[in-house]
Amino acid sequence: MNKNILLGHGSGGKMTSDLINSVFVKYFDNDILRKKTDSAILNINAGELAFATDSYVVDPVFFPGGNIGMLAVSGTVNDLAVSGAKPLYLSAGFIIEEGFPLEQLEIICKSMKEEALKAKVLIVTGDTKVVKRGQCDKIFINTSGIGIFNKKNHEISEGKNIRVGDKLIVSGYIGDHSIAVIGARENIQFENEILSDVAPLNLLIQDVLKTGHEMKFMRDLTRGGLATVLVEMVEDKDFGIIITEEDIPVRESVNGLCEIFGYDPLYMANEGKVLFVVKANNAEEILQTIQKNEYGKDARIIGEVTSGNGGMAILESVIGGNRIIDKLAGEQLPRIC
Amino acid sequence: MNKNILLGHGSGGKMTSDLINSVFVKYFDNDILRKKTDSAILNINAGELAFATDSYVVDPVFFPGGNIGMLAVSGTVNDLAVSGAKPLYLSAGFIIEEGFPLEQLEIICKSMKEEALKAKVLIVTGDTKVVKRGQCDKIFINTSGIGIFNKKNHEISEGKNIRVGDKLIVSGYIGDHSIAVIGARENIQFENEILSDVAPLNLLIQDVLKTGHEMKFMRDLTRGGLATVLVEMVEDKDFGIIITEEDIPVRESVNGLCEIFGYDPLYMANEGKVLFVVKANNAEEILQTIQKNEYGKDARIIGEVTSGNGGMAILESVIGGNRIIDKLAGEQLPRIC
Repeated sequence: MNKNILLGHGSGGKMTSDLINSVFVKYFDNDILRKKTDSAILNINAGELAFATDSYVVDPVFFPGGNIGMLAVSGTVNDLAVSGAKPLYLSAGFIIEEGFPLEQLEIICKSMKEEALKAKVLIVTGDTKVVKRGQCDKIFINTSGIGIFNKKNHEISEGKNIRVGDKLIVSGYIGDHSIAVIGARENIQFENEILSDVAPLNLLIQDVLKTGHEMKFMRDLTRGGLATVLVEMVEDKDFGIIITEEDIPVRESVNGLCEIFGYDPLYMANEGKVLFVVKANNAEEILQTIQKNEYGKDARIIGEVTSGNGGMAILESVIGGNRIIDKLAGEQLPRIC
Repeated sequence: MNKNILLGHGSGGKMTSDLINSVFVKYFDNDILRKKTDSAILNINAGELAFATDSYVVDPVFFPGGNIGMLAVSGTVNDLAVSGAKPLYLSAGFIIEEGFPLEQLEIICKSMKEEALKAKVLIVTGDTKVVKRGQCDKIFINTSGIGIFNKKNHEISEGKNIRVGDKLIVSGYIGDHSIAVIGARENIQFENEILSDVAPLNLLIQDVLKTGHEMKFMRDLTRGGLATVLVEMVEDKDFGIIITEEDIPVRESVNGLCEIFGYDPLYMANEGKVLFVVKANNAEEILQTIQKNEYGKDARIIGEVTSGNGGMAILESVIGGNRIIDKLAGEQLPRIC
């Protein structure tokens, strides 16, 4: 087999089926995928389903702590999980630039397999397109996912039950993913390497839901970062939010890099961080549950839902004074996910 | 609003939500999408689901008879339908090149809306990424889809019940889509314009299944064309296939163009054609049912499942003599879908 991806690998003919067998089936192998039917046939015993999609175009494809394949699995798993669903099945659609090294495709697929195992999901259907050199940048991956709901968790993603007094918990340090990707892109040498936080959060979220305490709202802090999630939470609402800058977990090294580049960590994309909104009197117990999970050990309560500032998210800064958090106006950092 | 897509439209911030509201929600509007949750929440009363994904990278984006948006909806609807499922929900993931005209994005989304209406499916969740100029070619769209099964139709896509004597029906002229795209790409002036056959086939397929006659196998004739489907059907099987060249519907103009370019219509991608395999004594009745549908009026019986040539698909040519149909070896035509 050739060492690079050729246009023929996207032809739908012999080379495509060779590639499917030698790479995709090899890594993603399971009973459903192996049937190679036009659609995956799933047996789901549930009335209520979650369905999510995301395309991943991160540049560079490999970065400290992860690669585009890990992102593609974790990202969609997390979209389903923050909706309150249990992720079960993923699709994987590849758009590959002619000449892309097969070896790198294998590393990416191996990572996808490992992330899927961690998250306990199956990759059950896929598609491959190959475009000529210069018509896409290396590789783009779309994953779509299906999850099922237990009980009434499908109401979580609408956030209808958020009330004044509810507490906001962030599951750990923010900004790591963005800084890891910028570092790799700009070839920056860090004193202490900053790794992407890319991770599937569904099992952490499952642990939290298992406490039985009401979950008001969850959202993963991807593109647009914590700031965008907060602004969207209060948009057109009677309540507001106040968060305290000194309680927001940001690594010193990330803060430093942000100052140099002129970025604000609040707006930085994360790929393994989630915001929980819970009742005040459950907040401490839920925080402890989160901290027991490997992906939540640096979780903190960062603020609360407030009255008197309806429709506004406010940051109480370390140096004193408040600042209204705005929606990101333009593009801070393209191709971060 | 700016007339071209900017990087900020993919930021996840204000410009992204403006784009979502002014284009995607405008055209795809429905109760599920409007909630703008991380995952679409679907209510499905079925144990057995079909799940399919496809990325569309067709070049040019607009071609006689269609555009990339029509392809993206019809293609995935057809993947679900040939599995025997009733398509219900689609996702739409856009990767857009910076500078792409918003007006063209609107035309594409309007087409997607119209195709979805024709096929009676809803677009319920989506994603938008914008990459810098030169990092992708105009626009790529991924659609994934969910369908439900009635009865035991989920066995159709495995083709387990194919038997010697079964008849093969093709739903109409083959090669139109490929020639329409090549024509647009190479700026060829045709005497009689050849239009792409892009169309959602699920309602045609539903009509056929409603006859109650057993459906042995269905497959849409996309990348790799009729030839590839036939080769895959007989691969590792005890039975073979014989098709008769003069029974295969190919327009004269398509045949002519194929001769000029050195293409074989058997391998040309179609986007609105399906192969049915049915019992011989039901074939005529099913053919008539197909011909009553607007997308099946040129359907024909083209051959049958045979013994004595196990594992081989054979073409009886017009000029006499047989030829074994091989799998497409390389890439005939990149970016046709």
